[in-house]
Amino acid sequence: MRRTLIGSLLLLSLAFFSPVRAQSDSRLIHRLLTDQVEAWNRGDIDGYMKGYWNSDSTEFVGGGTIVRGYREVLARYHKSYGTREKMGKLEFDDLVIRRISPAAAIATGIWRLHRAADEPWGRFTLVIEKKPEGWRITHDHTSSAGK
Amino acid sequence: MRRTLIGSLLLLSLAFFSPVRAQSDSRLIHRLLTDQVEAWNRGDIDGYMKGYWNSDSTEFVGGGTIVRGYREVLARYHKSYGTREKMGKLEFDDLVIRRISPAAAIATGIWRLHRAADEPWGRFTLVIEKKPEGWRITHDHTSSAGK
Repeated sequence: MRRTLIGSLLLLSLAFFSPVRAQSDSRLIHRLLTDQVEAWNRGDIDGYMKGYWNSDSTEFVGGGTIVRGYREVLARYHKSYGTREKMGKLEFDDLVIRRISPAAAIATGIWRLHRAADEPWGRFTLVIEKKPEGWRITHDHTSSAGK
Repeated sequence: MRRTLIGSLLLLSLAFFSPVRAQSDSRLIHRLLTDQVEAWNRGDIDGYMKGYWNSDSTEFVGGGTIVRGYREVLARYHKSYGTREKMGKLEFDDLVIRRISPAAAIATGIWRLHRAADEPWGRFTLVIEKKPEGWRITHDHTSSAGK
């Protein structure tokens, strides 16, 4: 029994932490963020939002407020970035992704909007979790550092 | 073999997710944050820092910069809050703790400093992980919303 338990644990560990799987997950998380930037830069906020988990518990923190729920976060983006001029060109920099469990990762980085009028930028911390539909952002804390 | 594997998985699940353990972990995480506030409010920055993981990979994000390493984060606190007047009285509000794995949780909330000159406040997102020495903050994104 003991031996089988150890064997099962080993199998579990291999299944969850195998380098192949980890590499593939890391690729998927990178792809998620790249897809978001590409959607943003073609003016597609709904496409950008596909990186977030479609759930009432998805959260966005920024500017002193917390917005809860996928629809509410989407509405905030539409309200804050109603035109292509306001959206500008999005760029992520200094991106670091750290796995904290088989089904969760923390991504940190710098965001910057290249716009005609200004170049707002700041830092973000994303909690990205593996859901049945794939890796999705479940929590986003985005802070603003300057223009 | 299949039955034993299922049995082992069940045992594992019970070990990691039992209500008793979860409740105790939740208490420990709450205690961690309460201890931090108490340390801050007696002017003890070193005590406050004990809530963070003592590691070179511990991170603090705020004001457009990321500070990496326990010593570096401690130095930043000492530099930014060199006097009791600057420290003021710390208060956490709207605290929500969400477990995302057996060994990781996300805490969000509002921070506020009651000071003679002003009352800066904002929101924080903490990644809190279970380490051999206990639950510790491994990543802190703190943003400022006003004074």
